[in-house]
Amino acid sequence: MTLKRIGEFGLIERISSGCLFRPERVIRGIGDDAAAVTTTADETLLLSTDMLVEGIHFLRRAVSGEDLGCKALAVNLSDIAAMGGMAREALVSIAVPEDCGAGFIEAMYRGMKSLAARYHVNIIGGDTTGSRSDLVISITVTGSVAKNRILRRDQARVGDVVCLTGYPGESAAGLYLILNPVDGAADFFDHLLRRHHRPRPHLKEGQWLAGSGAVHAAIDISDGLSSDLGHVIRQSGVGVRIDAGCLPVSTFLQTFCDRFECDPIDYILDGGEDYVLLCTVSPDAVSGVSTGFEATFGRPLHQIGEIVAGSRFKLTAEAGDTRIVSPKGWNHFKKELTDGE
Amino acid sequence: MTLKRIGEFGLIERISSGCLFRPERVIRGIGDDAAAVTTTADETLLLSTDMLVEGIHFLRRAVSGEDLGCKALAVNLSDIAAMGGMAREALVSIAVPEDCGAGFIEAMYRGMKSLAARYHVNIIGGDTTGSRSDLVISITVTGSVAKNRILRRDQARVGDVVCLTGYPGESAAGLYLILNPVDGAADFFDHLLRRHHRPRPHLKEGQWLAGSGAVHAAIDISDGLSSDLGHVIRQSGVGVRIDAGCLPVSTFLQTFCDRFECDPIDYILDGGEDYVLLCTVSPDAVSGVSTGFEATFGRPLHQIGEIVAGSRFKLTAEAGDTRIVSPKGWNHFKKELTDGE
Repeated sequence: MTLKRIGEFGLIERISSGCLFRPERVIRGIGDDAAAVTTTADETLLLSTDMLVEGIHFLRRAVSGEDLGCKALAVNLSDIAAMGGMAREALVSIAVPEDCGAGFIEAMYRGMKSLAARYHVNIIGGDTTGSRSDLVISITVTGSVAKNRILRRDQARVGDVVCLTGYPGESAAGLYLILNPVDGAADFFDHLLRRHHRPRPHLKEGQWLAGSGAVHAAIDISDGLSSDLGHVIRQSGVGVRIDAGCLPVSTFLQTFCDRFECDPIDYILDGGEDYVLLCTVSPDAVSGVSTGFEATFGRPLHQIGEIVAGSRFKLTAEAGDTRIVSPKGWNHFKKELTDGE
Repeated sequence: MTLKRIGEFGLIERISSGCLFRPERVIRGIGDDAAAVTTTADETLLLSTDMLVEGIHFLRRAVSGEDLGCKALAVNLSDIAAMGGMAREALVSIAVPEDCGAGFIEAMYRGMKSLAARYHVNIIGGDTTGSRSDLVISITVTGSVAKNRILRRDQARVGDVVCLTGYPGESAAGLYLILNPVDGAADFFDHLLRRHHRPRPHLKEGQWLAGSGAVHAAIDISDGLSSDLGHVIRQSGVGVRIDAGCLPVSTFLQTFCDRFECDPIDYILDGGEDYVLLCTVSPDAVSGVSTGFEATFGRPLHQIGEIVAGSRFKLTAEAGDTRIVSPKGWNHFKKELTDGE
């Protein structure tokens, strides 16, 4: 059986049973943004890891070392953000091919350290090794969160309002510009490229949402809204109805879509790598949470729909037409990056 | 500047400064077997990570999935053992090339789970992704140890007796047999191959040594005695005199060396991947520690030499001749595995 056929989630299903040999410590195991284990009576240790592989997640010739390091750490910190946690430590392992110079690796670490400094994360270890062909970066981060504040994927409840902490789709538009270089540069290019290369983990937002006590479920948008919201409803045993007219389209994404004649909704649903947070908020509290969020961060918490009974992801268009959304997010075993060379 | 030229440790030196942005939590950062951070007043969280890359650390066609999984976890648990810790959780990330079947990956997880079960380690997360060519496995483990029991590399003191918890050199002999297949099989082959494929992390031994209160420094033998003992003396600011006649040569290694006409001392000094522990023990306490170790584990704690003033690693032969040993252990940027195909 090939992995291409069973897919990433098929493989995870096959290997994730029978993995706990001291289960009393485990609050969340395989299947959430981060794992959570008990340390002290009211504190939880969060653990998350992500691996970036050349040719699958990035093209070495199309990215600066500094951006790559920054992004590799950001995607891990975003997992801690999605659990409502405070980021603590990072371990960084790299497999480096012979044709990759020390300067590139040093730039990568500069990028990581700039982000680590911003969020007070210690880089305290890792592993360095050679590689025959591709550069591989594997980062593990730890975080902490009070046990009763932890945000999980599987706690969405019927009636919850679905919210986003930012604008998804921009990163995928940035990737399009990298893979399809166009003549001339526009103002919005830089913004979209930066959103792809330097995603910002929504750590402060996640901590604030966890502290509100009104958020039932959360996830970060790493594979695209269709895929990630799909995880939330499947694991929570609910359905969702999203109002297409409420999906937040940034002016940058709208300008990009006008120019390249594409639909921003497609970028928002299937784009991925934005690392904004999606959360589901108790309907009684959503008004207060929204007001408080905007007062704290100076940006709106976008309300995009509602958790409903059932198991489907329904998207209602402005005209009232409804369609079923299937997850189309990234399957790392099916795709390979190419830039036409 | 190429990495081949500056080497693994040269690179680590270049990237490991300016990595701590919340230093008050950190007991040990980059440079020990595992990092150690404060969690509660008397408990320490240990974190360690290792990456195994196809073609550098293993040949996929020469290893079973089960052995590979078992070894990948064992090398990480060994780092926790070297800090005197109890192993807790593991995160497993894999990058899988298209030509690697799901069966191989499932066998890998069976191997990991068998070892995790033995040491009550939870496999609680990870990442799965594709790879264009080589299989990569990156594992991070956590552990815990009482703050005043933690074993470090940099605390060896002049007068300490240097001890080993097992027989180094056997794993390298096993690797020789894999890379240079010979006609016919001998009884000792299986043992040496097993020592290479299925190293046993000395977790119980490490915990026992930490509990003795008489061990000043410890490290696991992953790159070879010359390299790993070299780390201990350099970081502790001391020298060492090892008595060649006291180096423990197993009957299996001796039989192998007789047959292939090589010197077991070379295998012990430069072999690597044995994952036995080296420790330095207070001279007043070493007799009691040795007796207690043998009573507990039914095997001797081998006393092989003494920490001395200076900075050199001196090896004294039985005839009294002394030579200086330089680290010859594995440099992952210089070597690539080949089996002649």
